Amino acid sequence: ESNSNLIRATLFPGDGIGPEIAESVRQIFKVSEVPIEWEEHYVGTEIDPRTNSFLTWESLESVRRNKVGLKGPMATPIGKGHRSLNLTLRKELNLYANVRPCYSLPGYKTRYDDVNLVTIRENTEGEYSGLEHQVVRGVVESLKIITRHASLRVAEYAFHYAKTHGRERVSAIHKANIMQKTDGLFLKCCREVAEKYPEIKYEEVVIDNCCMMLVKNPALFDVLVMPNLYGDIISDLCAGLIGGLGLTPSCNIGEGGIALAEAVHGSAPDIAGKNLANPTALLLSSVTMLRHLELHDKADRIQDAILKTIAEGKYRTGDLGGTATTTEFTNAICDHL
Amino acid sequence: ESNSNLIRATLFPGDGIGPEIAESVRQIFKVSEVPIEWEEHYVGTEIDPRTNSFLTWESLESVRRNKVGLKGPMATPIGKGHRSLNLTLRKELNLYANVRPCYSLPGYKTRYDDVNLVTIRENTEGEYSGLEHQVVRGVVESLKIITRHASLRVAEYAFHYAKTHGRERVSAIHKANIMQKTDGLFLKCCREVAEKYPEIKYEEVVIDNCCMMLVKNPALFDVLVMPNLYGDIISDLCAGLIGGLGLTPSCNIGEGGIALAEAVHGSAPDIAGKNLANPTALLLSSVTMLRHLELHDKADRIQDAILKTIAEGKYRTGDLGGTATTTEFTNAICDHL
Ligand SMILES: CC(C)[C@H](C(=O)O)[C@@H](O)C(=O)O
Ligand SMILES: CC(C)[C@H](C(=O)O)[C@@H](O)C(=O)O
Repeated sequence: ESNSNLIRATLFPGDGIGPEIAESVRQIFKVSEVPIEWEEHYVGTEIDPRTNSFLTWESLESVRRNKVGLKGPMATPIGKGHRSLNLTLRKELNLYANVRPCYSLPGYKTRYDDVNLVTIRENTEGEYSGLEHQVVRGVVESLKIITRHASLRVAEYAFHYAKTHGRERVSAIHKANIMQKTDGLFLKCCREVAEKYPEIKYEEVVIDNCCMMLVKNPALFDVLVMPNLYGDIISDLCAGLIGGLGLTPSCNIGEGGIALAEAVHGSAPDIAGKNLANPTALLLSSVTMLRHLELHDKADRIQDAILKTIAEGKYRTGDLGGTATTTEFTNAICDHL
Repeated sequence: ESNSNLIRATLFPGDGIGPEIAESVRQIFKVSEVPIEWEEHYVGTEIDPRTNSFLTWESLESVRRNKVGLKGPMATPIGKGHRSLNLTLRKELNLYANVRPCYSLPGYKTRYDDVNLVTIRENTEGEYSGLEHQVVRGVVESLKIITRHASLRVAEYAFHYAKTHGRERVSAIHKANIMQKTDGLFLKCCREVAEKYPEIKYEEVVIDNCCMMLVKNPALFDVLVMPNLYGDIISDLCAGLIGGLGLTPSCNIGEGGIALAEAVHGSAPDIAGKNLANPTALLLSSVTMLRHLELHDKADRIQDAILKTIAEGKYRTGDLGGTATTTEFTNAICDHL
């Protein structure tokens, strides 16, 4: 009963609490009449008995074909002999930019009420090259790889994002005073792209100084673009400013116009299946997916309903100090739609 | 008129505001009758006309001989064809651990009032190897080097520090889920040392998660030990929590028992020579130097006087929102001695 007026989108509920929070997205999309038909695939740490696999070719093909998808948390098993599934998806789908809007949530109090920034992380190379070896006993090395291709690509994405999202400034984060060649090349590429966007301000900030400024005065920042590891660090730092990974959306941009939105928090096996999980990060991620599809009306309505529900504070899940179940919280959002 | 009852210590006032804040230390040590005789040498970005050099062999020998010293800020000239002087000193004196106690200052309000931790940074290798090259056009790589020798050395220092400073826990910060070999070796060394200190709790925290936890709840941390770049990032982040680099002491530990305390903030050329600089970071660094010399009475008295002066808030320099001159602030501290 596939409907040709509907946009097909891939859904990977993922591990642990993934299926519950994915159900919350399904429900809210249905109530909001979002014109999306989900194509659900299992990708996760457990072997799926239906396919005898944890990641099938069809799952990847689904994203490649639909060009848009949503993924829940996937655990990173340590020492199980295969790479993290998150990294595998990044690699296989060439997800070159990780975009995380991060803003203070009205009514949810942290030490900061003035955060409104977006981190854009290069997602394919740098310290994540996987190239490491032992030189001699007791001496090991890892290679950080920076390419002109990937740096230009993510810089271009960042400036385009700034321009199309009404942002004023892009800050390139680096440690080129130490890594003159690698981070130097990254900066060179950012500068080249900056010249094509004279309407967007451009600055360069050393990573240590950036982290200090972020904790002192995050309002100084707008869009931040950076190599892989700095992005990993700074995006989590920023999430911490507004309450944690349970509240921050994330979207991965791939070659060929792919957008795979994702909740970046863990799979929380301890509360899985108990209807206690907070679906906010996945919900806000699904909103970034809607924006990518230019369904801005739906995105605005859903985002407003989520933020209102959190601001009211009547229904909050345990991680936010409340006692609401996932269902109660989701229903409260639906009531605001 | 050298006095054999005095401990000789090297003083590098450094660039910019360095001489003024060094003068503040001299004055306070004199008033407190600290049994130290300073051996002052110029090390800085300008060529010293007396020696026609920016760094003489005698300066290095002075630290090696005295085993204890204090340094002011040194600018890092960009593209002047020589390495940063800070890095040169680290290398030449084999300063393998950078220790930064970081605690909320009573009366000086930031978003945090519950910081009380110490970062211990490996200071000689990692991403600071200086090994970088272009592989082909548009592809560059930097080498991160981790050795068993340097990792054990800094881990040993961290646990010894924890034990001798009444600290309960050491957290090793890493990204071994990605850099399994390099950060993996670092962790392995920390674990080996941890076994020798059963009275000190030991944990491992991934750097991205660590930064998120630091901004959410810094009280979770006690002593943190980590590879070079993570230390660079996290020590500045922590400084930001309590007000910035102008308020945080730092001490470098070298082979053979060397301790070179330093202010890690910049040389602030814009206010140099105007009697406006805040000497707090250098003063608190000089206190760590006194503790290294086991002059704990003097250290306690001076530290108390500094903290009281800041807490009272009557004399504060411009960077802390006040209007006091360096001299007024220093005199106020002396009044508390
Ligand atoms: C789980 C880990 C491999 C991953 C990363 O380092 O990229 C995670 O921290 C993230 O940010 O998605
Ligand atoms: C100036 C720079 C080379 C230096 C570093 O990266 O180590 C500085 O940030 C520091 O922390 O002392």
